[in-house]
Amino acid sequence: MLQLDHVWDDLRHEALEQLKVEPHLASYLYATVLVHPSLERSLAFHLANKLASSTLLSSQLFTLFRESLSDDIKIQEAIRADIKAFRERDPACMGYVHAMLNYKEFLACEAHRITHTLWDQGRFALAIALQNRISEVFHVDIHPGAQIGKGVLFDHATGVVIGETAVIGNNVSILHHVTLGGTGNCSGIRHPRIGDGVLLGAGAILLGSITVGDGTKVGACSLVLTDVPPHTTVVGVPARRLNPEVDVAMKATDEELPALSMDHTSSILNYTI
Amino acid sequence: MLQLDHVWDDLRHEALEQLKVEPHLASYLYATVLVHPSLERSLAFHLANKLASSTLLSSQLFTLFRESLSDDIKIQEAIRADIKAFRERDPACMGYVHAMLNYKEFLACEAHRITHTLWDQGRFALAIALQNRISEVFHVDIHPGAQIGKGVLFDHATGVVIGETAVIGNNVSILHHVTLGGTGNCSGIRHPRIGDGVLLGAGAILLGSITVGDGTKVGACSLVLTDVPPHTTVVGVPARRLNPEVDVAMKATDEELPALSMDHTSSILNYTI
Amino acid sequence: MLQLDHVWDDLRHEALEQLKVEPHLASYLYATVLVHPSLERSLAFHLANKLASSTLLSSQLFTLFRESLSDDIKIQEAIRADIKAFRERDPACMGYVHAMLNYKEFLACEAHRITHTLWDQGRFALAIALQNRISEVFHVDIHPGAQIGKGVLFDHATGVVIGETAVIGNNVSILHHVTLGGTGNCSGIRHPRIGDGVLLGAGAILLGSITVGDGTKVGACSLVLTDVPPHTTVVGVPARRLNPEVDVAMKATDEELPALSMDHTSSILNYTI
Amino acid sequence: MLQLDHVWDDLRHEALEQLKVEPHLASYLYATVLVHPSLERSLAFHLANKLASSTLLSSQLFTLFRESLSDDIKIQEAIRADIKAFRERDPACMGYVHAMLNYKEFLACEAHRITHTLWDQGRFALAIALQNRISEVFHVDIHPGAQIGKGVLFDHATGVVIGETAVIGNNVSILHHVTLGGTGNCSGIRHPRIGDGVLLGAGAILLGSITVGDGTKVGACSLVLTDVPPHTTVVGVPARRLNPEVDVAMKATDEELPALSMDHTSSILNYTI
Amino acid sequence: MLQLDHVWDDLRHEALEQLKVEPHLASYLYATVLVHPSLERSLAFHLANKLASSTLLSSQLFTLFRESLSDDIKIQEAIRADIKAFRERDPACMGYVHAMLNYKEFLACEAHRITHTLWDQGRFALAIALQNRISEVFHVDIHPGAQIGKGVLFDHATGVVIGETAVIGNNVSILHHVTLGGTGNCSGIRHPRIGDGVLLGAGAILLGSITVGDGTKVGACSLVLTDVPPHTTVVGVPARRLNPEVDVAMKATDEELPALSMDHTSSILNYTI
Amino acid sequence: MLQLDHVWDDLRHEALEQLKVEPHLASYLYATVLVHPSLERSLAFHLANKLASSTLLSSQLFTLFRESLSDDIKIQEAIRADIKAFRERDPACMGYVHAMLNYKEFLACEAHRITHTLWDQGRFALAIALQNRISEVFHVDIHPGAQIGKGVLFDHATGVVIGETAVIGNNVSILHHVTLGGTGNCSGIRHPRIGDGVLLGAGAILLGSITVGDGTKVGACSLVLTDVPPHTTVVGVPARRLNPEVDVAMKATDEELPALSMDHTSSILNYTI
Repeated sequence: MLQLDHVWDDLRHEALEQLKVEPHLASYLYATVLVHPSLERSLAFHLANKLASSTLLSSQLFTLFRESLSDDIKIQEAIRADIKAFRERDPACMGYVHAMLNYKEFLACEAHRITHTLWDQGRFALAIALQNRISEVFHVDIHPGAQIGKGVLFDHATGVVIGETAVIGNNVSILHHVTLGGTGNCSGIRHPRIGDGVLLGAGAILLGSITVGDGTKVGACSLVLTDVPPHTTVVGVPARRLNPEVDVAMKATDEELPALSMDHTSSILNYTI
Repeated sequence: MLQLDHVWDDLRHEALEQLKVEPHLASYLYATVLVHPSLERSLAFHLANKLASSTLLSSQLFTLFRESLSDDIKIQEAIRADIKAFRERDPACMGYVHAMLNYKEFLACEAHRITHTLWDQGRFALAIALQNRISEVFHVDIHPGAQIGKGVLFDHATGVVIGETAVIGNNVSILHHVTLGGTGNCSGIRHPRIGDGVLLGAGAILLGSITVGDGTKVGACSLVLTDVPPHTTVVGVPARRLNPEVDVAMKATDEELPALSMDHTSSILNYTI
Repeated sequence: MLQLDHVWDDLRHEALEQLKVEPHLASYLYATVLVHPSLERSLAFHLANKLASSTLLSSQLFTLFRESLSDDIKIQEAIRADIKAFRERDPACMGYVHAMLNYKEFLACEAHRITHTLWDQGRFALAIALQNRISEVFHVDIHPGAQIGKGVLFDHATGVVIGETAVIGNNVSILHHVTLGGTGNCSGIRHPRIGDGVLLGAGAILLGSITVGDGTKVGACSLVLTDVPPHTTVVGVPARRLNPEVDVAMKATDEELPALSMDHTSSILNYTI
Repeated sequence: MLQLDHVWDDLRHEALEQLKVEPHLASYLYATVLVHPSLERSLAFHLANKLASSTLLSSQLFTLFRESLSDDIKIQEAIRADIKAFRERDPACMGYVHAMLNYKEFLACEAHRITHTLWDQGRFALAIALQNRISEVFHVDIHPGAQIGKGVLFDHATGVVIGETAVIGNNVSILHHVTLGGTGNCSGIRHPRIGDGVLLGAGAILLGSITVGDGTKVGACSLVLTDVPPHTTVVGVPARRLNPEVDVAMKATDEELPALSMDHTSSILNYTI
Repeated sequence: MLQLDHVWDDLRHEALEQLKVEPHLASYLYATVLVHPSLERSLAFHLANKLASSTLLSSQLFTLFRESLSDDIKIQEAIRADIKAFRERDPACMGYVHAMLNYKEFLACEAHRITHTLWDQGRFALAIALQNRISEVFHVDIHPGAQIGKGVLFDHATGVVIGETAVIGNNVSILHHVTLGGTGNCSGIRHPRIGDGVLLGAGAILLGSITVGDGTKVGACSLVLTDVPPHTTVVGVPARRLNPEVDVAMKATDEELPALSMDHTSSILNYTI
Repeated sequence: MLQLDHVWDDLRHEALEQLKVEPHLASYLYATVLVHPSLERSLAFHLANKLASSTLLSSQLFTLFRESLSDDIKIQEAIRADIKAFRERDPACMGYVHAMLNYKEFLACEAHRITHTLWDQGRFALAIALQNRISEVFHVDIHPGAQIGKGVLFDHATGVVIGETAVIGNNVSILHHVTLGGTGNCSGIRHPRIGDGVLLGAGAILLGSITVGDGTKVGACSLVLTDVPPHTTVVGVPARRLNPEVDVAMKATDEELPALSMDHTSSILNYTI
């Protein structure tokens, strides 16, 4: 367990504040947050109840998730980086406790981290069974084999599909209906690799074993079938590079990483065909 | 409660007819419709059972929804205008009782009306918690802050995302996978305003603080990043204005409002790039 | 019941193998597969538990599904053709038992076959009620009236919408977020007809009473509003024909049917606008 | 299935009458009675829902119970004789539908008949598992090996315990808290045999391999450790024979069988010690 | 609703104290007590969850119970008198909140008060259906027709059976396994009438239309078939009057009412046969 | 955890045997026994599912029970002594796995051991809440304060009531409907103390702060209000000493301890009043 855990402390504090103003949620806040000794335990409990079914009981899943999360420092750090991403990048996010309890996008991402651990351990059948429950309950279909970096924000996340050999860097932001899909009835690496700090707009579809460079922005509704260089903006069906001069400026500073600014439109507004 | 309630009377009548031909649904029809004294009570019961979870019990939600619906004439009128829209504009809709029982798109819209009331009362945490359940259960992610007019038809509704500061007029029709999204990691008004009688085609993505005028049609698969004047047809990625001569004709009569005709293609068929 | 049932034999065999390496799934595998005498019984049980709600009990649905599947040779053959399609065309599919237990796309398709049977029997209300549960649980919204051939692969399937008068041929592959939609507030035939061996890419939207010929490929993110000839590749918003010379080659051999190769991009990669 | 089934016809008729005066029960009446084609199917459904747990699903039990009841004419006759006994001997019983839906004593008896069939087929583990669920849910603990005749009325039945080698005749009435127990840590026949037409009063405890003759009455609160001749009244701790002259009269006519008159006290009132 | 409600105030206060020392119960305490505006609402919620089944939903029962309790001052007073009786007479009772949440004996008694109201309104079928659920869940089988006074303490209550025409006075204490039974297969008044302040010991069986006078004590394991005068002690099978001289003393003061002292043995200890 | 655990090994072995002959129980056997690494984990899982309710979730209880059982060697030994007692003394018990899965009497006893631990830790409210669930689900009402030795067999156990200050020795056998009750509305020690090897027959009621000596037998239906010396047989209402000459013989050998022989009647058969 992490020694100092500011995220968990703040999350608990927020829960206690919320309790005061909304007693109708008190029972829910206690059961899912306040009674638990750690963020990992709370998350395991919440996911177990969400993903349980009549044939996969919540008490079975709770044990499985607790054990998956309990000693894995890497996953514990990723959870904290992710929940911070929600609070920092999503203007509608009112705090850690909201992300934890009420963001299916956050829950789907953390549930994927568990299935990925199971996949790495060779527990394929269990990982696939959980992937399907995550897809049914949260509408986010991420193959357990997919590798996802830290500080990743899925915004809304409805309809997201990510294939087995996809790789996603750190601090990426991914809107709803984004596809990182394969192509062809073949095995081997067949899905996109997404660099650090990338922003993928709503409905963007990226297919095949392609690479999207660091700090790039893919506009909403875009179809990407080829590599995209770092620090560029692409948009359209098929996606084309836009405004190279803006890209140059963007490249100059880390603070303007599209995944962090969540600016979907400023460099695209003068876009015509 | 409304004095004369033709919608409720018709809905109950339809339920009794359905009962005769399909006894397998009798139990369901009685529990959700026939045993209740009003449309509001029936809707509160049905939504409570749909949105309940192991940590938000159906009996808790039923009370909350009953109270939210019981004295709010405005919401009661909107419910009736919405259910009429389903029967009038959706050729697959076989009656009020179908919309009420079996249209997740209708249920999601009415559940949003309740969360919006809670949001207006400052009960933010409860509203957000319900938004998430609506999103999990119906796949419709509408921020509780969004304002939606009367007589709004969501068709299928799967994957719809509507942001906090979006405003939707009366008699609008919105297909599945439509996004009214924000842009940028900022606060303030950052989502679209949709006029009366607008038709938003499947997969249309509208981003930012833009205005779509009354009676306009946005084609399927379109990306809209700028204002759109009233009574026009726009389509494409990015969306362009199409067929100004058709728009002129369309403007002439209220009966041809695209939201009411649900005509997605007639003025677009000669569209090429 | 089918005399020799290799699919069921193999599926049971796979379940027994899975049991050995993953005892955490043993309970699930026994309850849903191993205890049942036939594929039909197992599927009826699994779907009943998935689609059950507090007002449509699993024991009610189990009986209904068993009866629908028990004597209908045509539906029994279609189930087997579908599950074979998953194993043959989806490189992430690790066997029949995975498709059966963990592929919401497969389950949604088979559940539709049951609702279609009910629709054909004139049990409209029951069929519609089930359509809605399938849509809520699997995020696949197929009107019970739609006709679907054998050996159809829905890949991911999230967000798929298929209208009442749509007709889909044999051996078709359909990616997620595909729409076969109607247009206009009218009755009669108003949805697409899809030929044999067609591949519909992710996010493709096809609207109106149009025909897509056999062996055709519709690229991801495409909007199709007009007829498409057989053995062609179309892509874009609106969709245009691409690479007629590739189409000619493609036409020459059955083995290159796009639905079977699942090749989404090879003939599209040099596509520009 | 029985050709003419007056019990089922009457039960359905009563359910329809009840529906009219109490719509709050309509959903329940449809789901458990009116939607089913036979008494056996209705009973199997009702018991499956009552006895289901998170690890024994209702859809599993429904199948098991349907199959157990479907072709066994003997058990079908016993069910009808039992339900008639309730209506004829229990003055608080308002009809077949009450016994069927609301009498845990009737449901426990019929559930035992199923476990007894399983026991006879050598399915010991399943029979014992069901015995325990019956005991948990209905508070009636009858070993699956116990043999019970037709037309048996358990009145209230709370706390009844009946051992493995007990034999109960036809037309017996058994009050709550009655024990037919064994004695000694041995195997073999070790429980009582109860003749036809016997009345066992509330709290009566009968232990060991003893025989209670036809038409006998055992008073409430009695402890019986030895054989009891036919057509006698015994009472007390330990039970003694009472009023031989009354017994003689009682013996004269079948109509005065204590199990049928349910007269617990008339021949005991002048009983002193 | 009662103007000043010290019981509800104290109960809420106890719940808040319990919350502090046992956070594992916090969720439960909020959901069942702290979120509710009144004792009636809290009780209706708690009973609805306890008595719900797959065919009688908790949200249905919650409404029914709320309406039954909301305007009936008599039942509201009885609830408060009963819960006070638990705190005053049961040395193991640690407060109102324990009785409310954790005493099936208290919950069974209050649930009976609701079924009795329904019985008086002629809603026989609903009352009987609830009686059965109370019997299944709490093991207390009280016919809805039975009349029960105020301030009645059921201690443990397991196995209690009370018939249709039984009448119980005020401030009575009834131990577990007590029967107030009928005799004979006849209609009309056929169950005991119990006076005020009576104590009925564990396992006591009283049969027939008999009267037990005020302030009387019936010893454990007793069988009572005849009237018992006021202020006496009876015990045995059959019950005999004991210690007339003690009875005389007992009669002298109200404070020594056996129901209040819960003294089961002091006047019986020198009892021999 | 115990180093060598023959009970757990045997229990798992029995489960595997049962699986082969009864596949209908396979899912249940895996979920409750075979997937768990220890007897404690299996028991915690099974009890959590049995005692869960809509307001006390199974995943909450599973954690609580696991933690209570995980490091307490004393309770681990008691569980094993108890389950051995069932197999050795109950002729109807077919093995450990039956006792574990299907004996509410065993489950109630072990659940009490957990509540007693909580009581000793001062967690009164939680202990009482669990006591009530045990009473509702298993019909066994044991106050968390009661002290119970090792190797205790509850046979059937329906209706057993044991008070707060009761003390039960080792290797005791207790039949159903036995009461170890208090007397008087007072605090302090007010319930019976039961010596080692005692047999308490069905329906026996023992009241007050009395002592029952080692190796004594209390007959069924007996009322005991005074101390009983060791190695005696008492029976009746009130209970009297019986057959002192038999007692003397009984005293001579440990093998004839009544709790072990379960002989309820041999020394009582010549009992008259």
